[in-house]
Amino acid sequence: MCQLLGMNCNVPTDICFSFTGFQARGGATDVHSDGWGIAFFEGKGTRIFLDPQPSCASPIAELVRAYPIRSKNVIAHIRKATQGSIGLENTHPFMRELWGRYWIFAHNGNLIDFAPKLDGSFIPVGLTDSERAFCWILQQLRAQFGSAAPESENLFTALHRLTLDIADYGEFNFLLSNGGSLFAHASTNLNYIIRQAPFAHAHLNDQDVTVDFSAVTTPNDRVAVIATSPLTDNENWEPMPPGTLWWFEEGKIEQTLRTKPGPEKKRG
Amino acid sequence: MCQLLGMNCNVPTDICFSFTGFQARGGATDVHSDGWGIAFFEGKGTRIFLDPQPSCASPIAELVRAYPIRSKNVIAHIRKATQGSIGLENTHPFMRELWGRYWIFAHNGNLIDFAPKLDGSFIPVGLTDSERAFCWILQQLRAQFGSAAPESENLFTALHRLTLDIADYGEFNFLLSNGGSLFAHASTNLNYIIRQAPFAHAHLNDQDVTVDFSAVTTPNDRVAVIATSPLTDNENWEPMPPGTLWWFEEGKIEQTLRTKPGPEKKRG
Repeated sequence: MCQLLGMNCNVPTDICFSFTGFQARGGATDVHSDGWGIAFFEGKGTRIFLDPQPSCASPIAELVRAYPIRSKNVIAHIRKATQGSIGLENTHPFMRELWGRYWIFAHNGNLIDFAPKLDGSFIPVGLTDSERAFCWILQQLRAQFGSAAPESENLFTALHRLTLDIADYGEFNFLLSNGGSLFAHASTNLNYIIRQAPFAHAHLNDQDVTVDFSAVTTPNDRVAVIATSPLTDNENWEPMPPGTLWWFEEGKIEQTLRTKPGPEKKRG
Repeated sequence: MCQLLGMNCNVPTDICFSFTGFQARGGATDVHSDGWGIAFFEGKGTRIFLDPQPSCASPIAELVRAYPIRSKNVIAHIRKATQGSIGLENTHPFMRELWGRYWIFAHNGNLIDFAPKLDGSFIPVGLTDSERAFCWILQQLRAQFGSAAPESENLFTALHRLTLDIADYGEFNFLLSNGGSLFAHASTNLNYIIRQAPFAHAHLNDQDVTVDFSAVTTPNDRVAVIATSPLTDNENWEPMPPGTLWWFEEGKIEQTLRTKPGPEKKRG
């Protein structure tokens, strides 16, 4: 399985601290060593860094860790290959353009026999189930809404329906962003934290590094961080229940929808 | 005006030497300091590095210069903004996916009032004439050939026709690649060199750096390099006549077509 990391903020924020811990998971503190990638939105533009080698030994990861790129939406991924060989074309996150915006997608899980009909509007370049799911999502969104972007509420509703369809095929934790919203689906394993004033010290799980967020933030900053497992050992990360789809915007939760019956329904 | 750099080879080759000279043009030996970018194909995968700051002062450019990424097709660009503000979304090269392959595009020139009808299949994210031209080219190719890639000869013929249409709007030097072929249009100013055995020493124009290509190549290597102006001062760069479209493949010229009447026709 892979490792996901996402960030959604109300002001452009660098991800150097979180990435320092995350980077170690690609072959140092964890076994996910089949490549890694990270995408930063800056306004409507996107920067994406991909490397098919382990992140703990990657000079590109070293640059990302040391070079503060300020972004309101970031998606990163460390790969443990399931479908598709180790190679750049199978390295997450993936990028496409829809409605004049870049879309970024990363997946943790495994979709069995997911082979939807693709009409040619978005075709996978690599051989992963993940890129296939991403292409199908964008194809279906364009088919539903045409050539202009819908309201965010309608987009989230449509994404919920598509997630339900795909989740039938297996484990489907994902992060998706168009630079404005960050969508996260917890299929089995995902956690989040929202950092806001009063800011405190945070200490990484994967490396002995501490940051004093109060020294690098303003009182109005709000930063949501989503990760496969908590990145720090002294903060309260919230587990995202399996079968929940989340919409983050400006560093806060805008809406959540169930993709599996919750505990209440199971009792009913 | 901007600076273009392209490379097309028969074996994966690093571009560190050429990029060392090219990088200096982004604010050091030349005035093009409104951002830069470079895209590498590795198999079907693509790595793209973009930075809206001058390449001569960019830590990302420093990484690219020092980190040998081996690629058969590379496109780089240093920007002097004409249309579209300085910003990541307006930084070349641009990337889209068509027919399950990534396509990379960079432009040097200025298209006046080029506002073609876009059907929504490829929409510019930024505000440059360049990205608009790229989106329109891909839209027209898909409209002509449907959802499967044509033979390369038919692709080149179609690209020639589209280039003729766009070149009516102004200066349109461009580099375009799908990872297999590299297409280059000389509208006003472009030069190329093909390096092959026997390899010799080369010395950069923009920095006092020399490389002995015979020490870093095998006798079968063949590398075509295309640049706005020659990168070395002791090799025979060939000027590409204004109004010529070039198709490079495996480090050699596959075909050229005129997009303006040549000198002979002018006399006729």
